[in-house]
This record gives sequence, structure tokens and C-alpha cells, in this order.
Amino acid sequence: MLSDIEIARQCKMREIDEVAKDLSLAATEVEPYGRYKAKVNVGKLSQERQGKVVLVTAVSPTPAGEGKTTTSVGLADALALRGKKAMLCLREPSMGPVFGMKGGAAGGGYAQVVPMEDINLNFTGDFAAIALAHNLLAAMIDNHLHHGNELRLDARQIWWKRVVDMNDRALRQISVGLGGPLNGFVREDGFDIVAASEIMAIVCLASDLADLRSRLGKIVVGLDLDKNPVTCEQIGAAGAMAVILKDVLGPNLVQTLEGNPAFVHGGPFANIAHGCSTLTATHAAQKLADIVVTEAGFGADLGAEKFFDIKCRAGQIQPTAVVCVATIRSIKYNAGVARPDLDQPNIEAVQAGAVNLLRHVENLQEVFGQQVLVALNRFAADTDEEIAALRELVPVPVVVSTHFANGGEGALELADAVLEMLEAPTPELRHAYELTDSYEQKALDLAKRVYRASEVTWSPGAKRRLGIIAAAGYENLPICVAKNQYSFSADPKALGAPSGHTLHIREVRLSAGAGFIVLVAGDMMTMPGLPKQPAALGMEVDADGNIIGLS
Amino acid sequence: MLSDIEIARQCKMREIDEVAKDLSLAATEVEPYGRYKAKVNVGKLSQERQGKVVLVTAVSPTPAGEGKTTTSVGLADALALRGKKAMLCLREPSMGPVFGMKGGAAGGGYAQVVPMEDINLNFTGDFAAIALAHNLLAAMIDNHLHHGNELRLDARQIWWKRVVDMNDRALRQISVGLGGPLNGFVREDGFDIVAASEIMAIVCLASDLADLRSRLGKIVVGLDLDKNPVTCEQIGAAGAMAVILKDVLGPNLVQTLEGNPAFVHGGPFANIAHGCSTLTATHAAQKLADIVVTEAGFGADLGAEKFFDIKCRAGQIQPTAVVCVATIRSIKYNAGVARPDLDQPNIEAVQAGAVNLLRHVENLQEVFGQQVLVALNRFAADTDEEIAALRELVPVPVVVSTHFANGGEGALELADAVLEMLEAPTPELRHAYELTDSYEQKALDLAKRVYRASEVTWSPGAKRRLGIIAAAGYENLPICVAKNQYSFSADPKALGAPSGHTLHIREVRLSAGAGFIVLVAGDMMTMPGLPKQPAALGMEVDADGNIIGLS
Repeated sequence: MLSDIEIARQCKMREIDEVAKDLSLAATEVEPYGRYKAKVNVGKLSQERQGKVVLVTAVSPTPAGEGKTTTSVGLADALALRGKKAMLCLREPSMGPVFGMKGGAAGGGYAQVVPMEDINLNFTGDFAAIALAHNLLAAMIDNHLHHGNELRLDARQIWWKRVVDMNDRALRQISVGLGGPLNGFVREDGFDIVAASEIMAIVCLASDLADLRSRLGKIVVGLDLDKNPVTCEQIGAAGAMAVILKDVLGPNLVQTLEGNPAFVHGGPFANIAHGCSTLTATHAAQKLADIVVTEAGFGADLGAEKFFDIKCRAGQIQPTAVVCVATIRSIKYNAGVARPDLDQPNIEAVQAGAVNLLRHVENLQEVFGQQVLVALNRFAADTDEEIAALRELVPVPVVVSTHFANGGEGALELADAVLEMLEAPTPELRHAYELTDSYEQKALDLAKRVYRASEVTWSPGAKRRLGIIAAAGYENLPICVAKNQYSFSADPKALGAPSGHTLHIREVRLSAGAGFIVLVAGDMMTMPGLPKQPAALGMEVDADGNIIGLS
Repeated sequence: MLSDIEIARQCKMREIDEVAKDLSLAATEVEPYGRYKAKVNVGKLSQERQGKVVLVTAVSPTPAGEGKTTTSVGLADALALRGKKAMLCLREPSMGPVFGMKGGAAGGGYAQVVPMEDINLNFTGDFAAIALAHNLLAAMIDNHLHHGNELRLDARQIWWKRVVDMNDRALRQISVGLGGPLNGFVREDGFDIVAASEIMAIVCLASDLADLRSRLGKIVVGLDLDKNPVTCEQIGAAGAMAVILKDVLGPNLVQTLEGNPAFVHGGPFANIAHGCSTLTATHAAQKLADIVVTEAGFGADLGAEKFFDIKCRAGQIQPTAVVCVATIRSIKYNAGVARPDLDQPNIEAVQAGAVNLLRHVENLQEVFGQQVLVALNRFAADTDEEIAALRELVPVPVVVSTHFANGGEGALELADAVLEMLEAPTPELRHAYELTDSYEQKALDLAKRVYRASEVTWSPGAKRRLGIIAAAGYENLPICVAKNQYSFSADPKALGAPSGHTLHIREVRLSAGAGFIVLVAGDMMTMPGLPKQPAALGMEVDADGNIIGLS
């Protein structure tokens, strides 16, 4: 089979104006960025449709690969083959990891969004604008300290760091303001990658420009000397940040390899943030299409949970159906099979590892009240017997999909099963915890109901920060748990379906602009590093502008 | 009179496709970025025209204002009114200063390029891509140190810093790699503003993508432990950097308020770099138009000199005419008149301050062999007597222009005078120094002939660095002097036409990718700070996306 980039290059893309026309978008509603990308002007959308939302989530991620993005793409293409008006909403890849270990992230095989190279690189400038808005606030904070510090900011308690869209471990922890009084005050600081910026989360949760502006003002940048939170509004930066960000809210319109419309918009981390594409994209897609296929980061315990408890709450979204992606390989991995042995037929391992999938399906049904089916992303080595063994254990439909090799044609069965679910009425979305409860109670409800932990413990620092947050009146916010994505527990090696463990909250962070508080369980990396042989080493561009080595 | 942004907003812009059509650009030669901006694909231009180049330069800058950019815009509009196929080439504004003291930079009054807000903000992403390419190299250098340091880089001699497009004094001098071995090695570092990145200079001097790629590889990032230069090619980053930059070389097509075509492309500092818009824009404009109007930073001693000695050499450009911009106010300021008194009629001050203009005109004629006229950018308070007094002293035509208030109509006389000069054959461009001479000789020739200094002295550090550079074989490069722009001498208070001073070179920097060495005379700021009341404080965006407070 060809490589992803070879397949992407063979694709004869449609002009983006044509794709927009299929969506009945008027010329004034679309801003072209080159011939194959556009931003949709959501402020001007007049369409009245209310498309149904299908969430694509997955089992706990494993090194074996699951394929949430490719399944989303394949499903959208298959729905189009069935004559349905469907629209895809995906996250934007971060550029830093493209040059590190990960390479590109725009689907794979015959289930990709294109233009793949643009999407993985500078794209329409969203990440760059977010970085500049973020760094303007940082510069204005240090400028405030430098010029008299009227707000009495505590320089030891500045929570707002700086960002760059690069994997750069040397910037994780730095000291700034060296070199004498002209350069400001010396203090400790650090850089996060742009995907970890609270502004990324804000852009993804804002319903419109006015909401974006208001959320920017609410960002808490740190504490004053009396331990009161100091906001971005007080620093005076929010208006200028909104100026930088004014075009970012427009969803980026691209297409699948099969020429179907896709929004690729927003890329927040799924640990420190909620890991979903933008609300403006989802809302616009609902106006433009009858079926909206979207995905959320990591496994269902993290991605789907945050989609339901954070994004759906923020945007009054009621999903109609959930597709939980699994692979025979990942199920066997969850039974403890080593990576080199994953391609060996092993029915017992399928039966043993299925507990992870079953737990996720049960959560989606029981905790969140959703209609669920399992999309089995088939690999060449999977045997019919293994698939049959899995089907016997799973109480919902298990639909085999071969979109990676066959594009939309390979996902027709999946599309039909989804269409059947969509005929049922949209269920009432339920949540893992109530917003009006205390943060301790919210964490306990989430830990018990979704992670199946028996208790939640808090570090003294986490408790202290929770006290400051509550005292300042930040109540009723949803919680965003940053825990390892490989297990229901905090131990990444506890595969399958562990229960009875302890969820330990090491640290608490307030994201008042995004509108949640982050509970950090375990290590959380907000600035990746490059490996010894970064992908960048193999990249080149020829004299005609063709990119070599991006995959 | 209306403010710049009010005038810009009243302008009914033409769709950029129409502007492109006027230039006989085929659809495949243009990539639209929204409806009013486009990038021209220079690799595909088939036009054979060889437009004549008119350089707009100026007297030494003063706080009174000269108006190089507005004169360039007015001249281009007036040439269009005269039925000529003219094209404007300007620099891109840097976003950092927009939020600091300076505000926007896209002309002013009725001589502006639009869309003004886009040009001043994220525009087509050139600065963002340059920043990412720059920071990728920085990350790969620290990554190299972290993973075994095969090249034996001397961590105390890393010359390559990081960049951000923001005025942020706290980042001027920092320490990176704090927090333990997982975060790399601790070392001193700093951030420059993007306009000061060597990559900005490279983008502005590269003739095409292959040249860009080759120049990136030549960047010297620092020294190894044996004091040998280590290049970007050795780090292995150049190919990936070219991938990030592949679309940046396309000139950005916008329009003047009067709907005439303008390239706004590239924005290198005029101290650490050469301060001109891109070579690709100039070359493309020469193919598309009969007359190309372009400008260079600061006064003629710096901007025009670097245009001739660096850019024209790199791009085999032979300018046909030079317009030297002056104002009665700036001439009086050069005679020592205080700012509050500049609007008082004062013929003696005009006669005394004219020495600055006369020196620049003489340099342009004698040193560089150019045809010159003076464009007098008229302010309301200028008297006819003052103008007459100036005319008597100046040996070349002095043409009054009122483009700021009247647009192209106000610059018709200027256009006619320029057209007359263009009828003469293009003169042979001469240079201030020979490339084959030693760097000491080059500096001495430039200092004596253009700055009228009597000698050049070198700090021990500068001499040492010069030795390293020469020993490594970097000979025959042009020199790029970073000195204060307010005086011919290194003393910013020595107005008028000082001579016999000493040019002291404090520091030498190698920009092997850009293809010059920088001689630093006096302080050089590569990272501005924000003032106590930054312009950002007054900026806002309303719910419809209209920007307030950007001027």
C-alpha cells in the first residue's frame, strides 16, 4: 500500500469554492485561503438546519493503534456515498510534534483530510494567532511588573506562562528578566506548546466573538500579594488579544480524499484541556449538514467524558449516537499481549482484553445515556474467529470497517448502522457529575462512575489551590481531569478494566477563561521534547516546493 | 481630517482577483488569502517585462516625520493616474510594535495600502512561519546538546537565539534548561523580535526556493569547542525549515487606497539586517510592471546604502532613479529646532538644516552614481518661502507632494518628475566598497565615503570575531552596519552633516545565510519593550469583528 502522503498527493482535490457551494454557502460566508482551504464566517450563517451529532470515541489508547480519526473520515465518506448530507469536524494538528516523533495527523491511508501538508503545517494561521495572543498577555504581565506593578501582582505567583508551537524541552523551565533593570524583573517562567494554551481551549469553547472576548477577560493570570486572583481584564490585554484572534473562530473548511466537506478546527490538549475541535465548527456543521461526525481525544473515559461534560454543556449539544472505535490489536494489547505478538491469532486474548471495550461501552450507555455501537477498525491480520469472539461478548452492534484500505466504500456497513441509530430519537444527555456540587464531590462522582476508582485523594497543594479558587467565587465550573490516558486508573500499566483504585489529585489549575478547573493526576507534559532522531531530520523541500519526508 | 483607520475603512476595496487580472496574472499564479490579499506564485511567472526600479529613500529620520512609505504609495498612485503600469513594493509591518508604541505601519492619510488591519496583524502568516522555522532550529540545537552533542557544540558559544513577534523585554536575556536533566542543559539564551531573525533577512534576499534552502543551510549557529563554526546544515534542520517556509517567498499582493497593486512582503530590521522588502517581490514586480517603486529603511546612509550594497548585489538590480524624501519640519529639526517650534516659519533653520539633505543627495549621486530628486512631503504649516529657500540650496529638482492629504492627485508633479528621470538611461550602479577587499577596508571605505568619518576603530571582541569569521573562510561578504539612524555619526545627537568622527565597531556578527556580516556600532536593540501605556490597552474588537483602537 502507498504511504499516506503518496495517497494524499494522488488525490485530485476539488476547488474549495465547489465544496463550499455543495454546502449552500454563499460567497460572503467563505474566506478562501488558497484554492483548497477556506474559513467559514460563522457570524453570517443563515442556514437553519439542526444536524444530528455523532461522536466518535475509542477504547483506551494503546501503541497498537485504534484509528478514531480515520474512522471518522471513513464514516463521513460512507454517509456521503449513501446520499446523506454529512459533515466532518476534526481537530487541527499541532506543528511541533510533526517535527518530532509523531509526524502528521490528518487521518491515514484512504481516510484522510487534504491538503494534508497544509493542514499539518501553517494551515490558516490559527495556532500562530493563538500563540501571539497568549504571548501578548505574557509580555503585558511582565510589562506591568516592570512599570510600577499597580495591581500588586505577586511575581512568585504568575500562573500565565508563554507558548511556542514547537517541541522544545529547553524552554520548559526558564528564568526571564536577566541582564539588569532595563530587562524587567528576574523570575521563573516557562513555555508550553500552543495546544496547551488556555487560549486554545477558549477558542474551542467560545460560541462567538463576543463570548471569546468575554472569556479572554476572565483568564486568571496569577495572584496578587493578598492572594486574590488577577485577571487578564485587569491587565488590560483582553481587547488586543481579541483583535489578534478575531478571524480564528471561523472553522477551517477542507475536504476528505473523496471530496466531502470537513472542518479541521482547534486542537486543544486532551489532558490540560478538553481535547475536542471547536464549538463554532460543530455549530456551523449542524447548520450546514444533517449529520455531523466529530471525534474527541484519547479513550472514552477522557475524551468522550470531556466532550459530554465540558463541550456539550458549553454549547448545548445533544449527541444522537456514539461510535466507539476498537481494534483487535488494541483489545489483545489490553490483555497483556506484547507488541510483536499482536498479529498472531489469539482468541483468548480477545476475550480477556475485551473488558476495556466493555467498560467504555457501559459508561457511554449508563453514565451518559448514549446510544452506542462499536466500529471495529479491521487490520489485515485480524481473523474472522477473533471478530466473532468479540461480537459474542459485546452487547451492542460490532461493525467491521475497512476505511483505511478502502475509503468510504469500506465504511458503508458502519454508515448503515449509524443511520439506523440516528432514526431513534436523540437521547437525553446525562453527565458524570453535577455542576452545582463541590469540586470534591464532582471529582468523586467522576472517579467512581467513569474511572471506577473507590476514592479521591488530594495533595496539600491541590487542596490549597482549591481553597483559593473557591474563595474567589469560581464555583459551578466543570472539572477537566489530566490523568494518563492508557488506563482507567492513574497507573498506565493497569490495562483492561481496573477498579477500586485511588485517584490522587496532585495539582489543581484554574482555567477561568476556558471555564473549567484542571485536576492533575500524575505527570502532565505541557511541553514535549524532540527525540534523538527527530522527524525534522528527514524533511526536505525540492525546488518546485514539493515536500519530502512528511508523513 | 479623518484618522488613518477611518480613511482605510471608507475605501471600497477591489477584489484581489481583479487587481491580479490587471497585472495579467493567471489564476494559477495567484493564491488568494481571503478576498483582498493574495500570494503570487513567483515560480510560475511567465512575464518577460523588465520594469525600471525607483528607490524611495529619505533624509536622516527625525521625530518630525518624513513619510517614505506615504510618498512611495502616493508616487505609485500618481503614476497610475498618468496611465503608467506601476507597482509598489513595501515592507511588512511587524506585529509586536503595533501593540507597543508605534501602532500600525501601512502608510497613512490618503496614501495607504489596504486591508490595513490585516496587513498590520496576522496578514498571510509570513512572520509566523519565519518564527517557527527559527525556533525549530533553536529547539534542534538544544536537542543536539541534550542527546550526546556529537558535533561538540560549545554551549557557551551558541549564537542562534529564539524569536517571537512581540515586544517583550523580559525575554531579552534568559536562562533555559532549568529544572533538571530531563529539560536539557542550562545555558544563557534570549529572544529577539522576528524582524531581527536572520531568517527574515534570508527570506528577503533569496532569489527562489532553492536559494532559500541553500542559504538556510549556511546559517552559522555557533562554535564548536575548537572554535569552528557549526552550520544549520550540520544540525540537520535546514530541510525542515524550508518545509515550513515554502510558501513564504510568494509576494503578498494587496492594493493602495486607489486600487493600484502593491506587494507588501518581508520586514527585516534596518540595523541588524538590510531593511528592504523581498527580492522576490522586486523581481516579480519588475516582470509585472514597467515601473517598480520601492523603499528602504531609515535614512539614505543606512537604508539606501544597504539597498545598493546588499540587496542590489544579491539580486542584480540596477535602479534607474532615486527619490529622496524630506520635510520642512525634518530639515528644521536638523538645524536644532525643538519639536514644539517646528510649525513656526523659520527660513534660517531651513537653510541651516538643509546640510543633512544635501549630504544624502551628494552621497546618492557621487558614491552610488544615481539620478536623484527630492520629494518634499508638504505639511500644512510649511510656507512657500521656506520651500523656495530650500530649493535654492538643493542642486537637484525639489518636487512638492501632498499625497497624504490628496492621494495620487497630490503626487502628480512628483510622478512627472520621476517619469522624466526614467527617460534617461539607467545609470551604472556604483558601490561604497568592494566585496573583494578585507572587512577592515570595507568598513573604512563605507565610513569615509558615506558617513564621512575619519577612522574606524574595533573593540577587541569585534576583532576576535572578525578573525574567527575570516579564518573560517567567510570572505567577500558585504557588510551591514548597525548604527544609530539619527545621525551620520554614531552619536544620535549629532544632527545635520557631521564629519571627521570615529566609527567604533563594538561587535561583529556573522549572518552567513543572509550573506553579510553585521558590524555593530553603538547599542542595537533586537527586542523592543512595551511602554507603560502600550497601544494594546486601547484596542478592542466589537461583536461584528470591527477593530477599535488600531491606528
